[in-house]
Amino acid sequence: MTQRYKFTIEYDGTDYAGWQRQEGDLLTVQGEIEKAIEKFSGQQVTLQAAGRTDAGVHAKAQVAHGDFEDFTKPMDPFEVAKAINAHLRPQKISIIGAAPVGDEFHARFAAKNKLYTYRILVRPAFPALEQGLVWHIKKPLDADKMHEAAQVLIGHHDFSSFRDSQCQSKNPMRTLDRLDVRVRDYDQCGGQEILIEAEGQSFLHHMVRNLAGTLALVGEGKWTKEDLKAALEAKDRTKAGPTAPAAGLCLTRIDYPKDA
Amino acid sequence: MTQRYKFTIEYDGTDYAGWQRQEGDLLTVQGEIEKAIEKFSGQQVTLQAAGRTDAGVHAKAQVAHGDFEDFTKPMDPFEVAKAINAHLRPQKISIIGAAPVGDEFHARFAAKNKLYTYRILVRPAFPALEQGLVWHIKKPLDADKMHEAAQVLIGHHDFSSFRDSQCQSKNPMRTLDRLDVRVRDYDQCGGQEILIEAEGQSFLHHMVRNLAGTLALVGEGKWTKEDLKAALEAKDRTKAGPTAPAAGLCLTRIDYPKDA
Repeated sequence: MTQRYKFTIEYDGTDYAGWQRQEGDLLTVQGEIEKAIEKFSGQQVTLQAAGRTDAGVHAKAQVAHGDFEDFTKPMDPFEVAKAINAHLRPQKISIIGAAPVGDEFHARFAAKNKLYTYRILVRPAFPALEQGLVWHIKKPLDADKMHEAAQVLIGHHDFSSFRDSQCQSKNPMRTLDRLDVRVRDYDQCGGQEILIEAEGQSFLHHMVRNLAGTLALVGEGKWTKEDLKAALEAKDRTKAGPTAPAAGLCLTRIDYPKDA
Repeated sequence: MTQRYKFTIEYDGTDYAGWQRQEGDLLTVQGEIEKAIEKFSGQQVTLQAAGRTDAGVHAKAQVAHGDFEDFTKPMDPFEVAKAINAHLRPQKISIIGAAPVGDEFHARFAAKNKLYTYRILVRPAFPALEQGLVWHIKKPLDADKMHEAAQVLIGHHDFSSFRDSQCQSKNPMRTLDRLDVRVRDYDQCGGQEILIEAEGQSFLHHMVRNLAGTLALVGEGKWTKEDLKAALEAKDRTKAGPTAPAAGLCLTRIDYPKDA
């Protein structure tokens, strides 16, 4: 008998070569959690994540599932999370939730909605407190213009222009449900943080970073809303803006149907 | 001729033995900035900070002043900050503001008001993204009770009960203008962040950390508002709660009179 567990996971992606376990000595989030699971349970469990985040990308609530053989004694899901966390220290990875689920649950395929956030710190001085967690841009961006332009991307479209050339998805069609750009006050010294929130059921490889990099062009005044629309319609990666750095990106929330 | 500069400084205090320069090899915020100033200008400038933060304590907007001999060519204050920052990398210290001020300006004595914030992360799982920036408490705290009790401390009092035994101030009297405790939503997994905000013109050594440690006892339900009042009135450090960890504390804002 196996029991499937759903884990909710927070990590600071700075030190990791991404979520996905890799050959060799590369430090990965999946690899470190699977090692911790083996240390606590003796079991080799393969985790399936909702989103395979890239190197340097963070998560407040990544979700992954894995199948465990029966434990020798019954374990509370909270105790399972605690035991894995004990073996994860001092990694910057923390299991913040654990729940037994049915075998039909799949972290990736059952996900109904994902929220990615992208943080831009706008000020002349480099970030000290937020190093590795933001994209640092020195010159002012017009967040209102970015937000207004972003709305042309909402809906069901071919997002080839915002898709990495390495993207393995067969289908470039995605539905973007929400793309909001807003300012959060940062400090008293004229700096500001611009927060981009992107919601949809699924995203193409590098899609949010490519959206962020292109919206920055709008914020700088180099691109208009019409340019953004034309880039989308071109269905050609070379017609959109650059890929924003991984550091600003965070997988912030994943929603599942209530019964999952 | 010398020119006094006022600097606004952000730092992640995790790796530093506090603000104050020390003998030997200890890494300090003041020491690193003074070294960077010397590298860029050749001048040995001694900085005076508004608040000498302890080891592990952070700042979003520490303020310090220092006197420079005339530069060989006139320099924009923004260029001065940029030059210092260039020599500070990869330290987690950033000069976020610089302004020439009159010789009568003093970062510490001219400060009209300081805001310290103290962050508590409440959840079973240890922090991954906020490591070193929060006090991690596993069991729930009642933030409303903490806030209500905190109000007995507002005003002009002898704060000996919340003062470190090493405190060098001659006078234990301080005026606490604001002590608010509120909850910030943290994530979808039941965790929460409790934010304590303490405002006043000046504070005793460890005062905010001792307030936070004692308020946590109220939040846990071990202490009542009346216990907190009795602790204040005892004027005895042994009658108040423990010193909360440095990691949660941040010097967040310092106000000066408009003409300073």
